[in-house]
Amino acid sequence: MASTTNAFSLSLSSKSNTNLSSDSNPKLNKPLNLTLRGSGSGSCELSLGRLALSRSSQLSRRVCPNATRVMDQSVGEKSSAAPTIVEVDLGNRSYPIYIGSGLLDQHELLQKHVHGKKVLVVTNTTIAPLYLDKVVDALTRGNPNVSVENVILPDGEKYKNMETLMKVFNKAIESRLDRRCTFVALGGGVIGDMCGFAAASFLRGVNFIQIPTTVMAQVDSSVGGKTGINHPLGKNLIGAFFQPQCVLVDTDTLDTLPDRELASGLAEVIKYGLIRDAKFFEWQEKNMEKLMARDPYALAYAIKRSCENKAEVVSLDEKESGLRATLNLGHTFGHAIETGFGYGEWLHGEAVAAGTVMAVDMSYRLGWIDSSIVKRVNDILLRAKLPTAPPETMTVEMFKSVMAVDKKVADGLLRLILLKGPLGNCVFTGEYDRKALVDTLAAFCKS
Amino acid sequence: MASTTNAFSLSLSSKSNTNLSSDSNPKLNKPLNLTLRGSGSGSCELSLGRLALSRSSQLSRRVCPNATRVMDQSVGEKSSAAPTIVEVDLGNRSYPIYIGSGLLDQHELLQKHVHGKKVLVVTNTTIAPLYLDKVVDALTRGNPNVSVENVILPDGEKYKNMETLMKVFNKAIESRLDRRCTFVALGGGVIGDMCGFAAASFLRGVNFIQIPTTVMAQVDSSVGGKTGINHPLGKNLIGAFFQPQCVLVDTDTLDTLPDRELASGLAEVIKYGLIRDAKFFEWQEKNMEKLMARDPYALAYAIKRSCENKAEVVSLDEKESGLRATLNLGHTFGHAIETGFGYGEWLHGEAVAAGTVMAVDMSYRLGWIDSSIVKRVNDILLRAKLPTAPPETMTVEMFKSVMAVDKKVADGLLRLILLKGPLGNCVFTGEYDRKALVDTLAAFCKS
Repeated sequence: MASTTNAFSLSLSSKSNTNLSSDSNPKLNKPLNLTLRGSGSGSCELSLGRLALSRSSQLSRRVCPNATRVMDQSVGEKSSAAPTIVEVDLGNRSYPIYIGSGLLDQHELLQKHVHGKKVLVVTNTTIAPLYLDKVVDALTRGNPNVSVENVILPDGEKYKNMETLMKVFNKAIESRLDRRCTFVALGGGVIGDMCGFAAASFLRGVNFIQIPTTVMAQVDSSVGGKTGINHPLGKNLIGAFFQPQCVLVDTDTLDTLPDRELASGLAEVIKYGLIRDAKFFEWQEKNMEKLMARDPYALAYAIKRSCENKAEVVSLDEKESGLRATLNLGHTFGHAIETGFGYGEWLHGEAVAAGTVMAVDMSYRLGWIDSSIVKRVNDILLRAKLPTAPPETMTVEMFKSVMAVDKKVADGLLRLILLKGPLGNCVFTGEYDRKALVDTLAAFCKS
Repeated sequence: MASTTNAFSLSLSSKSNTNLSSDSNPKLNKPLNLTLRGSGSGSCELSLGRLALSRSSQLSRRVCPNATRVMDQSVGEKSSAAPTIVEVDLGNRSYPIYIGSGLLDQHELLQKHVHGKKVLVVTNTTIAPLYLDKVVDALTRGNPNVSVENVILPDGEKYKNMETLMKVFNKAIESRLDRRCTFVALGGGVIGDMCGFAAASFLRGVNFIQIPTTVMAQVDSSVGGKTGINHPLGKNLIGAFFQPQCVLVDTDTLDTLPDRELASGLAEVIKYGLIRDAKFFEWQEKNMEKLMARDPYALAYAIKRSCENKAEVVSLDEKESGLRATLNLGHTFGHAIETGFGYGEWLHGEAVAAGTVMAVDMSYRLGWIDSSIVKRVNDILLRAKLPTAPPETMTVEMFKSVMAVDKKVADGLLRLILLKGPLGNCVFTGEYDRKALVDTLAAFCKS
């Protein structure tokens, strides 16, 4: 544990834009009152064996003060329920994450975050037939002064590139949108990342709103302001940190999500447990079958708990100077799979799942975790029907060449997120025995 | 004057990220000690008949405390002089503008702003043969751990587009640059804008340094963090606000600047006088021939005074919520000329000069200025060999269609910077008689 703490202190010492004083935010001292319905374990406590304990534990439970009442009322009243609210605390760039069923029917929720009179909805060919009309209705009902344009992009990670991004700019300019417009990202992580980067760059920055429609986007990519596109040589190499006005998670949109996409999102849910929230991991171990069966209460809890974890980390380290990098457990190996194997062949969460197994394997080779964790990670990923090894065509050389341009390389040194200590603890470090990395790559690649 | 002040109050009331309290910055209360060599009028006082007077007047003279001594020593000691320093005050994103002769020979000046071990110099085919070796030497002398890559782009406004920007990303990724690298913009405004936007977007943001080599870039575009590229339908429509680590103005680089480029830069110098600094305008009226003859002292003073004006405005309104827009006097008409006539046919400053005449004409039609100002603006632009009317091929329709997508349009209303009151005063407003705009366009276009 001591060395774990040291590794974090080291990475945190170089960060900027982070305010560790809880005095500066009076909201932190609000009374907390939270009950969660339907969570299998009945527990939402955090394992917080690491830095900034007091602030984290306060932040971890910051939800809408009336969440308890609301969630009790909402049983059987799907479309009228007020949302659970998780706040992302970033000073004057703070914003709420609304989570609940039927939120797209509550038009005032969306409308209060629209700036100006013109809106551009950015979505894709899969989502547009399902939810575009609903979103346009939510934006315009009782609000006739707002005009809504849309741009429908091809669906898939392989289109997350400059060419597709230009379609958003073209539409925005043809529609004569000005600085007082609002972009709305309606879709999964690819749409959110591209729309966010377009909003960050159009006229040097306009407002935007995230309406994520996949588990992946709802638990991870829509929160925290990371936006961007891929380059043929690496994922997310071009982008911006740019925060939305709000994130609106209508859990009803998951009704149309394919099983494979559902499982992909669960890879990130599992990640939160592994890196910082052992209790949440244990809850997942008890409830994985419910999640896979789309039990609405289990899914709602998993989304809320994931957003709380993400919001905490982002609030402490918006620009990824240290702590935030831990959210990338399994992603360095995973990005290599996505880039090397071809964007879109595997879903992001599938690549992250295999990458997580590799990071866990390496952590074990370094002697940083015991074998029971290795087994539990493999078991839970298998139960989520996620891959536990990279595609057979991946070679050691493919991993190495993509990992060399990873954003976490600093002055030529590849830093990785690895588990260390009891379940729920990790490190972000470039100080590891290179042999363990070589051995892990050799163990998972045929050549 | 009363209505002028009101218009400003209105636009300032909506701005954010601006700190009007001088208490928060102890540097503002430093003793000031400034003498300028060779300025024709011997005066550097400001006309400040507008908002935030006390802060502005303090900021306006904030230069390096040892500037006097240094500038006295520097006569005849071209390469060993310490620079004049103008500070851009933006909290934790503050940075210095170094201005002086022979600064590229002072390698420690540049090196102290380089982060990491890898540098990418972004320049163009015109500047590379002249100054690339000198800059590489300045970056590496006595500093063998730094490796310097470069990317040489085609020269000209018409290449300020996504295709050219991708060349910078490609080079950065092929060179395996990581987050701890530094981009250096070596060239004029086009290079600075593109390199800055590339730095803002590469890996979601890396450090960068501006080394402007044109008057235009030295007095305006390199300062203040506006970066971006053009879209076929409008100038600078895609970009970011992203501040450099420093701006290094080596006035010796002007030795190789073509006359037409020199004049183009003077359009922005004249602008500062018109919008906020009547004394500076009067100084220019006395010294225009010296500036055109490249008198080094006159040029150094014009650059320094322009940077001080720019730094003040940017410090008060980084993201252009109001005040900063006044720096765009003549630019809305000018951008229409650049876009309508074809990027690169006229230099930016040439288009701004013609646009300034149009804005002044419209201000006069509105009854906001007297005819003597119209005459003085025409006279000084003619002495600077700048155009005082748009190209003959420009039509009213061309102006209207480009101006409709201008970044200063808000909820469909085109806001303009217009002169109002005595010399040195302007407004940024959408409240003007539309007939004046129609009449101005008709007066300057054949059809």
